[in-house]
Amino acid sequence: MAGTIHFVAHEGVATVTLESPGKLNAVSVAMWHELRRVFEALAGEEQVRCIVLRGAGGNFAAGADLDEFGDVHYDVASGRRFHLETVVPSLAAVRDAPQPVLAAIEGVCAGGGLQIALACDVRIAADSSRFGVPVGLLGFPVVLPELRLLLERLGQTVTAELLLTGRLLDAHEAQQKGLVSRTVPAAELELRVIEAVHAIASGSPLAARRNKAQIRLLVERGMQYTAHHLDASLEFLESADYREGIAAFIAKRHPKFTGK
Amino acid sequence: MAGTIHFVAHEGVATVTLESPGKLNAVSVAMWHELRRVFEALAGEEQVRCIVLRGAGGNFAAGADLDEFGDVHYDVASGRRFHLETVVPSLAAVRDAPQPVLAAIEGVCAGGGLQIALACDVRIAADSSRFGVPVGLLGFPVVLPELRLLLERLGQTVTAELLLTGRLLDAHEAQQKGLVSRTVPAAELELRVIEAVHAIASGSPLAARRNKAQIRLLVERGMQYTAHHLDASLEFLESADYREGIAAFIAKRHPKFTGK
Amino acid sequence: MAGTIHFVAHEGVATVTLESPGKLNAVSVAMWHELRRVFEALAGEEQVRCIVLRGAGGNFAAGADLDEFGDVHYDVASGRRFHLETVVPSLAAVRDAPQPVLAAIEGVCAGGGLQIALACDVRIAADSSRFGVPVGLLGFPVVLPELRLLLERLGQTVTAELLLTGRLLDAHEAQQKGLVSRTVPAAELELRVIEAVHAIASGSPLAARRNKAQIRLLVERGMQYTAHHLDASLEFLESADYREGIAAFIAKRHPKFTGK
Repeated sequence: MAGTIHFVAHEGVATVTLESPGKLNAVSVAMWHELRRVFEALAGEEQVRCIVLRGAGGNFAAGADLDEFGDVHYDVASGRRFHLETVVPSLAAVRDAPQPVLAAIEGVCAGGGLQIALACDVRIAADSSRFGVPVGLLGFPVVLPELRLLLERLGQTVTAELLLTGRLLDAHEAQQKGLVSRTVPAAELELRVIEAVHAIASGSPLAARRNKAQIRLLVERGMQYTAHHLDASLEFLESADYREGIAAFIAKRHPKFTGK
Repeated sequence: MAGTIHFVAHEGVATVTLESPGKLNAVSVAMWHELRRVFEALAGEEQVRCIVLRGAGGNFAAGADLDEFGDVHYDVASGRRFHLETVVPSLAAVRDAPQPVLAAIEGVCAGGGLQIALACDVRIAADSSRFGVPVGLLGFPVVLPELRLLLERLGQTVTAELLLTGRLLDAHEAQQKGLVSRTVPAAELELRVIEAVHAIASGSPLAARRNKAQIRLLVERGMQYTAHHLDASLEFLESADYREGIAAFIAKRHPKFTGK
Repeated sequence: MAGTIHFVAHEGVATVTLESPGKLNAVSVAMWHELRRVFEALAGEEQVRCIVLRGAGGNFAAGADLDEFGDVHYDVASGRRFHLETVVPSLAAVRDAPQPVLAAIEGVCAGGGLQIALACDVRIAADSSRFGVPVGLLGFPVVLPELRLLLERLGQTVTAELLLTGRLLDAHEAQQKGLVSRTVPAAELELRVIEAVHAIASGSPLAARRNKAQIRLLVERGMQYTAHHLDASLEFLESADYREGIAAFIAKRHPKFTGK
């Protein structure tokens, strides 16, 4: 049983669920590929305004599925395929989704599972969740493209602590260190996720896509941008969403955005 | 009533106050231009050792004054003028003040108001204050130079949460996420601001200016510097302030700095 | 009495102790040079898996030894020697140690002492410790290579607050602002340090060295890497440590790493 990725979409919200029963949702090669396929398909779905990524059965996800490593991760050539053709493109597909992606986290969120969560835009964690990257105990360092994601999201002090000590952080410390956007009581997780999805979906899809793409642009380019990028960042001024947002504000009514 | 910028200076401390009554100090075009003018004038005032920036009437500032948007922000050409000739140069004037700038924050600090606060060096917030950038509900993304300021000060995880969810943070969470340097009880805000101003003004003006300029230099240049920059960073060793600081330390007395 | 650096190694753990009695371990020129010499020697000691850096007598370290400044830091030429030939190479030797370096902090950790702590990978602080860089009161700015270390580790908001206000942070605020990895009750400091050393030493030395070097590589190069760096980051797949880590995981036993 190599695990599966579940996918449902309802009223503009897509939910993607990691599941590998009995393995804390450890992510198999098949799951990495399916995760990529689902997110690449979602990229073209303009009516989807928000994506929720979560794990089945009370955990987000442990890391990669180590039971497969004898077959897929046993020398430089196979490891290169595993990381560069399986894990990294899948993380990039999550990170580069045009829509905002919300990770709803409970239980274990470690190794590759934490990397998936960090590829999301917003992370809401139940106070029962636990975080870490204990790869040192497995004898391997993090390959560069994956390390870059950790450093971009967490900074070097937190990344170094996670990798060198292998320590698991509870949800409170994870919030304090910036691994998650918010930590909420486990019993409130669903409610807080629904609220956040509603908030995201209430905003302009055009603004959300542009904001997300521009954050990525600046981070990717070390905060530098060209005149062309600047021009593109002003195009929203002639969009329907912008006109509707201002009109609704002035009329004191709720805006109805179309993403155009 | 388009709002005003108040300015007073007393014993080496300049206080700049944003005021637009009945609008939570929303910042009009006239106020953006005046803010720039005041800070550009202060840049030449060597006897000013510290600048305090605050809002009138219990709030720091809501964002830009949306009531004007029909006149100043209605297509790409007007939006370009608004952002690149009004907002961005004004934020740059605050950010590039040679003196340390302290934001004293209470009440609403949102949108353009939060951008102004982030252009300051130190932010002290009353525990009653609230922070956010809910532009998605208004249908517009943040233009690149303004987004860069958010990312430089807050990092991508916090910036993404603020922009994509539009959530307002209370002062406690704002401190936890690094939006403000300190959160203090509202009743203590004045006292804590006075203490901080005193601490800033007690230090060497030369050291403060050099420290601030060098932080900006390294952030602007992705942490790279030239031999020329390194030489300049050693010039303080022949300054009067440096000699006075060491002499006072050895004599166990308070130093008297001149900024030379 | 110019102070000394103590050094002991025991079962793969080296402990380096700063000591200048009666001066809160202020770091003299002799101590800076000795600190560099000790860390450069440790770089070649493959059997050392973890380095603990601490201060004697209940404090980590105050800054540089100001009593010497009349002799070593009195004009541009002497200051250049002091910073570029004494302080900066010593901080670089700590930062670039191939092994993980853990700072065990109690009491005063200020100025050059804080810089030394920030050059370490993980910082565990007793709740009695205090942090700051009050150089403004001494009339001098931070020279660029040292400022770069502060900015890389702390970001610009925290760096600006520390340098411009000179404020001392207690251990709780230091943790909240990311100066330290963890703050623990003073009575538990030894226990928590031993636990962290054990966790570090239990992991693969090869993974630790690679993780640490790769974090440095990405930070130094603004997150960019070449195909050569990427190839090097995959070499672990043919290492003994990697094979041992996976074999031990599958056999549900503790791994025995050799660092090969």
